[in-house]
Amino acid sequence: MDVAALAGVSKSAVSKVFNNRDGISPATRERILNAAEKLGWSPSAHAMALRGERTRTVGLVIARGPDLLTADPFFAETVAGLEQELGPAGYGLRLHLIADDQTELAVYEQLVRERRVDAFLLTDHRVGDARHALLRRLGVPALLIGRPWRGEPTACVHALELEEAMGAAVTHLTELGHRRIAYVAGPEDRVHSRLRRLQIERTLADHDLRLRTVFDTELSGEGAARVTAELMADPERRPTAILFANDAMALTGIATAQRMGLRVPEDLSVVGHDDHPLGQWLHPRLTTVTQDARQVSRAAAVRLLRLLGEPVENEPEPPTARLVVRESTGPAPERPA
Amino acid sequence: MDVAALAGVSKSAVSKVFNNRDGISPATRERILNAAEKLGWSPSAHAMALRGERTRTVGLVIARGPDLLTADPFFAETVAGLEQELGPAGYGLRLHLIADDQTELAVYEQLVRERRVDAFLLTDHRVGDARHALLRRLGVPALLIGRPWRGEPTACVHALELEEAMGAAVTHLTELGHRRIAYVAGPEDRVHSRLRRLQIERTLADHDLRLRTVFDTELSGEGAARVTAELMADPERRPTAILFANDAMALTGIATAQRMGLRVPEDLSVVGHDDHPLGQWLHPRLTTVTQDARQVSRAAAVRLLRLLGEPVENEPEPPTARLVVRESTGPAPERPA
Repeated sequence: MDVAALAGVSKSAVSKVFNNRDGISPATRERILNAAEKLGWSPSAHAMALRGERTRTVGLVIARGPDLLTADPFFAETVAGLEQELGPAGYGLRLHLIADDQTELAVYEQLVRERRVDAFLLTDHRVGDARHALLRRLGVPALLIGRPWRGEPTACVHALELEEAMGAAVTHLTELGHRRIAYVAGPEDRVHSRLRRLQIERTLADHDLRLRTVFDTELSGEGAARVTAELMADPERRPTAILFANDAMALTGIATAQRMGLRVPEDLSVVGHDDHPLGQWLHPRLTTVTQDARQVSRAAAVRLLRLLGEPVENEPEPPTARLVVRESTGPAPERPA
Repeated sequence: MDVAALAGVSKSAVSKVFNNRDGISPATRERILNAAEKLGWSPSAHAMALRGERTRTVGLVIARGPDLLTADPFFAETVAGLEQELGPAGYGLRLHLIADDQTELAVYEQLVRERRVDAFLLTDHRVGDARHALLRRLGVPALLIGRPWRGEPTACVHALELEEAMGAAVTHLTELGHRRIAYVAGPEDRVHSRLRRLQIERTLADHDLRLRTVFDTELSGEGAARVTAELMADPERRPTAILFANDAMALTGIATAQRMGLRVPEDLSVVGHDDHPLGQWLHPRLTTVTQDARQVSRAAAVRLLRLLGEPVENEPEPPTARLVVRESTGPAPERPA
């Protein structure tokens, strides 16, 4: 039994009263307010959800440490891209940031239990990510912004041809004569860490080269400075080129090398990832692999709206990842035999 | 003029009508609804709060261009700080990003009309900010994260002693022998631009120095590079020290000077603002004025929860702004007479 039925009026009459629009007689208005009172109905988003209506809200739960939210533009780019599409469609973004991923599943469950969201967008995909099973069980639509792992999940949006772009970055270095190449990767449980490393190793293998990979467990500036200092400590064994898992680490790595009296790119070539807005302005300008996080998230937002049954004119194609060559990469230095 | 006054009834009568409680005659109810209609007042989150019914959602509408969201950590820091307090209190953050501030007021009105939020947090305070009057009219609690302008709004949270910190930055430069000091400020309509400029000029005046201020209308890396190149073009007239409105611009300014063959801090001292996580890692490490945006927003979240009548153990004191001296500031260079 809903308010309209109990009051014997149309749903639009009910909405008119609760939105203070006119065209409703005092008597009818009175009857509607009384019916609402009897049913304890209130025009809140929550009540709308209870009636099976949409909350028109999409949940985004991000488990990232403080540094990563700010030093890495991914978070802001993603939120900006989502809003660009969700806003005009009358949808809002409900955001939850959690410092660690301990409480993560509980947050998803609570948002569903309280009917706060119609669907979720997932980021920071992990190997064997427990969120997929949970959301299937809860029966809530979800879309991954990122690459699947072993075919899961099927609903995902990510930049195209990342493998090719990573391959191009490695080839760019080998063509510059680099033979000692290191990769400072993200956490080992991150899908992107695994996939990128795989691609780098594959490309290096084509040149009979082996990769020196360093898994930096926090993707932090501190980690990048520490790892770079360690890698460059021994002049005889240090790499002539380093690929970093994100631009913030790459920029920190460049500064760390400069602080050691090394020149970039003369003594060390550096390649970043994700095209941080500062990368194009700092000195030297950063060579990076860009995935255009904003465009990816725009495409993801539209895909999700379609999953939710919203009318979607045309779904934008996800962007194509590509290597952007600037000033931080150059010919490998001559070395004493 | 509020609804009760216009309808010639008590506030409790108004609340009764909008909360579907009885004890109000049809005629009076009608008069109240008409008054509300005339004033464009709607039984929003405010009314829901009155009857203890909450969406437990706080709205945050941000009007910033793409670059600013990512290059400047303010956005991510603020969201992270708010979540840190809102999450445990069972509140969620409803986020809307709009590229320009044209649609801004409409977004606030819609969120209230659809009863999506209990209250708003406001950022990027502007001179003569139209949001205050709107939110008063809508009857929704709001709290500004930032400094008031001419006493408005009264509900605001910001870092303490910013004036002292800005003064310390300027004194730091004058004590290093700098006489030609420039300030690359944010948009002129931003309250923080006005207030910081005022404080810098005041401090310089104490040393019989005058400020060369440049209002960069976009706070962008492009703007910082352009303005720095202009400022440094003439060796005879260029400043020996520049203060920037944020760290992203300061880091871009340093790189631009380096690209011109200048050394920082030997030829140019640079002071940033807001302590970007990269500032401590780049070379040279950036001297900056920090306001700890995360702590400010944590304090703001708790203050808002208290305004909403939530039990608050102890409200954290907003952080104190301070000058962090690193490597980008040094003695003023000798100059040909």
